[in-house]
Amino acid sequence: MSSSLANPSCYLYGPGDARIEESVYPTIEDPHDVVVRIAYVGVCGSDVHFWSHGGIVNKVSETNPIIMGHEASGIVHEIGSAVSTLKIGDKVAIEPGQPCRRCKACKAGHYNLCSTMKFAADPPHSHGALRRYFKMPEDYCYKLPSSMGLDEGVLVEPLAVAVHVARLAEIKAGQDVVVFGAGTVGFLCAAVAKAMGAKKIISVDVNGSRLKFAKKFAATGTFLPSREDSAEDSARKIIEENGLDEGADAVLEATGVEICIETGIYTAKRGGTFIQAGLGKSKIQFPIVKLSEKEINMKGCFRYNAGDYELAMHFLESGKISVKELISSEEPFERATYAWDKTKRGEGIKNLIRGPQD
Amino acid sequence: MSSSLANPSCYLYGPGDARIEESVYPTIEDPHDVVVRIAYVGVCGSDVHFWSHGGIVNKVSETNPIIMGHEASGIVHEIGSAVSTLKIGDKVAIEPGQPCRRCKACKAGHYNLCSTMKFAADPPHSHGALRRYFKMPEDYCYKLPSSMGLDEGVLVEPLAVAVHVARLAEIKAGQDVVVFGAGTVGFLCAAVAKAMGAKKIISVDVNGSRLKFAKKFAATGTFLPSREDSAEDSARKIIEENGLDEGADAVLEATGVEICIETGIYTAKRGGTFIQAGLGKSKIQFPIVKLSEKEINMKGCFRYNAGDYELAMHFLESGKISVKELISSEEPFERATYAWDKTKRGEGIKNLIRGPQD
Amino acid sequence: MSSSLANPSCYLYGPGDARIEESVYPTIEDPHDVVVRIAYVGVCGSDVHFWSHGGIVNKVSETNPIIMGHEASGIVHEIGSAVSTLKIGDKVAIEPGQPCRRCKACKAGHYNLCSTMKFAADPPHSHGALRRYFKMPEDYCYKLPSSMGLDEGVLVEPLAVAVHVARLAEIKAGQDVVVFGAGTVGFLCAAVAKAMGAKKIISVDVNGSRLKFAKKFAATGTFLPSREDSAEDSARKIIEENGLDEGADAVLEATGVEICIETGIYTAKRGGTFIQAGLGKSKIQFPIVKLSEKEINMKGCFRYNAGDYELAMHFLESGKISVKELISSEEPFERATYAWDKTKRGEGIKNLIRGPQD
Amino acid sequence: MSSSLANPSCYLYGPGDARIEESVYPTIEDPHDVVVRIAYVGVCGSDVHFWSHGGIVNKVSETNPIIMGHEASGIVHEIGSAVSTLKIGDKVAIEPGQPCRRCKACKAGHYNLCSTMKFAADPPHSHGALRRYFKMPEDYCYKLPSSMGLDEGVLVEPLAVAVHVARLAEIKAGQDVVVFGAGTVGFLCAAVAKAMGAKKIISVDVNGSRLKFAKKFAATGTFLPSREDSAEDSARKIIEENGLDEGADAVLEATGVEICIETGIYTAKRGGTFIQAGLGKSKIQFPIVKLSEKEINMKGCFRYNAGDYELAMHFLESGKISVKELISSEEPFERATYAWDKTKRGEGIKNLIRGPQD
Repeated sequence: MSSSLANPSCYLYGPGDARIEESVYPTIEDPHDVVVRIAYVGVCGSDVHFWSHGGIVNKVSETNPIIMGHEASGIVHEIGSAVSTLKIGDKVAIEPGQPCRRCKACKAGHYNLCSTMKFAADPPHSHGALRRYFKMPEDYCYKLPSSMGLDEGVLVEPLAVAVHVARLAEIKAGQDVVVFGAGTVGFLCAAVAKAMGAKKIISVDVNGSRLKFAKKFAATGTFLPSREDSAEDSARKIIEENGLDEGADAVLEATGVEICIETGIYTAKRGGTFIQAGLGKSKIQFPIVKLSEKEINMKGCFRYNAGDYELAMHFLESGKISVKELISSEEPFERATYAWDKTKRGEGIKNLIRGPQD
Repeated sequence: MSSSLANPSCYLYGPGDARIEESVYPTIEDPHDVVVRIAYVGVCGSDVHFWSHGGIVNKVSETNPIIMGHEASGIVHEIGSAVSTLKIGDKVAIEPGQPCRRCKACKAGHYNLCSTMKFAADPPHSHGALRRYFKMPEDYCYKLPSSMGLDEGVLVEPLAVAVHVARLAEIKAGQDVVVFGAGTVGFLCAAVAKAMGAKKIISVDVNGSRLKFAKKFAATGTFLPSREDSAEDSARKIIEENGLDEGADAVLEATGVEICIETGIYTAKRGGTFIQAGLGKSKIQFPIVKLSEKEINMKGCFRYNAGDYELAMHFLESGKISVKELISSEEPFERATYAWDKTKRGEGIKNLIRGPQD
Repeated sequence: MSSSLANPSCYLYGPGDARIEESVYPTIEDPHDVVVRIAYVGVCGSDVHFWSHGGIVNKVSETNPIIMGHEASGIVHEIGSAVSTLKIGDKVAIEPGQPCRRCKACKAGHYNLCSTMKFAADPPHSHGALRRYFKMPEDYCYKLPSSMGLDEGVLVEPLAVAVHVARLAEIKAGQDVVVFGAGTVGFLCAAVAKAMGAKKIISVDVNGSRLKFAKKFAATGTFLPSREDSAEDSARKIIEENGLDEGADAVLEATGVEICIETGIYTAKRGGTFIQAGLGKSKIQFPIVKLSEKEINMKGCFRYNAGDYELAMHFLESGKISVKELISSEEPFERATYAWDKTKRGEGIKNLIRGPQD
Repeated sequence: MSSSLANPSCYLYGPGDARIEESVYPTIEDPHDVVVRIAYVGVCGSDVHFWSHGGIVNKVSETNPIIMGHEASGIVHEIGSAVSTLKIGDKVAIEPGQPCRRCKACKAGHYNLCSTMKFAADPPHSHGALRRYFKMPEDYCYKLPSSMGLDEGVLVEPLAVAVHVARLAEIKAGQDVVVFGAGTVGFLCAAVAKAMGAKKIISVDVNGSRLKFAKKFAATGTFLPSREDSAEDSARKIIEENGLDEGADAVLEATGVEICIETGIYTAKRGGTFIQAGLGKSKIQFPIVKLSEKEINMKGCFRYNAGDYELAMHFLESGKISVKELISSEEPFERATYAWDKTKRGEGIKNLIRGPQD
């Protein structure tokens, strides 16, 4: 039972093998660091992939287990001597990566591309936030306004993902945007596009009830592709049924599924932008000649970068985006595996795990 | 025999079926137009594709033949009443597309994406320059300096292609560039990258003698992939053997070949740029997850746009790039098919066809 | 009386000297042109300057009078043979400049910088729209939706000015924006910034009632500088009283007044953007060292360019921006000078002149 | 005599009051830091300003003296435990600023705008490099190739300034560039513009012999303004005499002098770029309406940023730019004031001070 441990932590030892064990309390060495007492941890697709397969690129093992969790909120428990922006008791959302701050990528403003980034729950050596106490530099903890709950604080992470997608797409007021995928990130991509002034925002998915939610949440239109249609057919219908002029100014791909990517390329207008945010099969069939003929600007998309969390916080504080309705369930820390299983079965949108209680 | 015709023109009626026939002398209606007497027409890969298959997207037919030729130079033969920048007798290089000047793409500075572009030798309706007299707006004719031959003038077109590629890549001084393909466009991409201040320029091809030429022409290094190596292996070797730090800042893909595209994605550094200039199979296997993980900026590339011809002309006039050594042969107008066949067999780099003589 | 003329037109012959005279009905020569029957013409600061001084850079004269008017709406009266997007009877807003479409600036997407632009009411040779019939290319006439009145159609011009300002500023969601000047353009700059997702939008002016309107219209905050305060003091107060972190992300200067420009530079944050939209004295005292120390990006701003009218139309059609409340008065064609005088006296926001009636 | 001190350091106590005194040996606390034994320190205009006036914004005082020197090279003397890119004995050029690495500006890739930057020789608290031992983080020390002398290493700093100027200007191949000021930074701006592929590079100064040097060093043309000419006249002559089409694509202002700035604005073409690099009077008369009418992009310029030193190093290593000919003299450490006085009198281009000898 976790309450007998000082810092109960949920380790993954392999596919289907999670164990709650003690981890060392994170002593503050850098005076800019803070220790956060974790309140909530969210479950995302990659957690489910870890739970099923033990990892994505690198895998955990009996000798190299990893503490899970990278979407997290909590309360500041201890602060280093140089900390100036936070005090004990502050509610915070956590940006779960620690870049080196010294390499070319970091200094040039691309810390998400830092090659020695320590990202939460990244095997073999970087542990996550699914525990009682978690240490972070103060500048990667974002103070929640009093109006915001700690449960909502967990959603800042996927919202920052969507912000990063939309900023890469350089979405401008009046543009038409098509979002592939009606999951947490897809919903939030649509919401961010709307907050940036997009005109039409079309959500595409094979799940009709998810599309209904998308429409209620942020999309101005939806499209459910027929399984008989080719990618070209679907793209033509998306364009025609939604009156998209010559196609979408920006396509935000949040599925990683081959047919969606192909459809997305056909959906983008000449000179349009395509952001690959979803991760799926490592290789796919890809309509390369269309990319050239339409001079599409296609950008890979990886996590989040400077300013993304700040903008996510602004959207939440200002009420331009609300994440409350995305929260589907809460499980206690000891039942983390239930939350993973639930998400694996496609139940709910964002399922949360509470941090260890006393 | 062409000399008995007023405006002898080389029509393609189908694969392997070219006929020299009369076409109407192009009367000037728009006062900004000029008539050019064609001096030379170059042969490129797409001409060979037309010669073999009758077209690429749209095909010629017995009822809809097309006059061939889109790389051309000539002498101004007649000018419209409003022409102010050219006079009869001027030697010019021709930019062979006429955008509408009125659509959103044209007005926003992307005339290469004009959906009603009339491009030379583009079935079913737009005839090319392989004839005696060819009409163009004055602003798409570029006056050759006296030091430049009309044969060199033909090469402005492929050089403008390379300029467009390199400008899309936003190549900056000190960057490392890898060019896939050691043909005319690949050679010129390397030369343009050098003129823009690139540091290392690595030319990649399976033809060793072409690589030798690339090295002499502009590349600072070359790489001949082994047929046993995977794309990942080749990429690793390109990076290591050439000391490319974490990979190439920019990859310029000028082959359209699947394995090259894949290798190119592995060769680009995190945050690097990849330009798809080569056209090949319409669909390929593509390492999409790598694109995302490295947040690569991949851009399709289509023809040329505002400023490309001007910059190509500057490179030639200033001597920063010389194209003379790319010219391999000249055929008289009546032997155009020989030039196509020669190019099809891979003989020479740039084979020229002379305009019809009196 | 104007109704006895076929095409009654309001000419300016010199300061205070306006005469209604016949001008030739504009015969369609270019098949892409349309003739618009003018419904409304708006009055802006430059009209007042013309009325008072006979021009700005170039002046009108007894031998070179000019037809006034550049903010205009009307009904399509006749169409050229190639016109495809408009039909007779369509209500349109007019973009009152005709670029050459052929120079480097035009082809590179900067037609507002075309050196041979024919802009309405631009001495010595380019006449304006304050007449019954006015000819324009169809692509510079924007069809009004049925929900929009012809009086509102006049406001598309100043809204396009504001769109151009905000697009130059590259305003992004979550940014703080300070707008100097609470007149038509200042109000609309604030509204566009809001539609682009700006966070705080502070309107600055010395006229308190105008600031009240600004707040009601689009600004989130206002500032009325004290005449005793230095530019530095005012800037510090703008920043502190509005909680602008280290300063404004973007400053939109819509007055052209020296003290405003100086205050604006002090108000911008390090790395911020400053757009000079207002026109006033040709030379001013300017804090150049601050520009360098804060590495401010300062951009001159001239008229509007590709996409600006389209985006203005989108804001109006979607209801994101409403211009109805900016319209203060209407004068009949014969009383144009009353509208100019009224505007000169600072009465109203946007005063309109109706086109000549039958 | 300095050799009797462990870490002899040259303090400025006030205008004309420099004293060589001991400073504490810089103990390594951060494991990424190194201690450099200073070999050379360069003299620049700001040093002279300090020597004459005791500072620029903040001033030194009897109670707050500052160690001088910010252009420096040296030999690595001691390394922290985490240092991986340098070893004892390495020759290095020093980038003399230490940003916080944690603020928004730092994380967004603009560390030159860090509000808590510790820059060498910046009163009241940040000491410079004119001493025997100086501590820096390893990533701000750039290893010199064996072919490069430590004296040349000092010039990396002003070259990085010029690189920053030219990168802000986004100079592209084929562009025409006008550089105001024929001093160290002006010479280097011209050289960097050339290395980036600029077409015409016109150096402007009132000193004819400096212009001769500029021409030999990098400029393709020069212009010596007549004292009788207005700014407009000079600009017109610069454009006409050098055949600049409609003006310069980029103007690099490296003097800070009012008449130069004004002339520069008139010299820039429509849509051109103007970089304010020189620092002079805090306020000047400025032709603001021209900035708007030509839609000039004017950027303040402050120090250097990520990538600037790296690119400067590349230019030197590759031989694209040579700085040897800019070095005019060397003074021993004890005669630092002679070097400042010499520079104040306008003697030489870059005068060096040697680090303290044993």
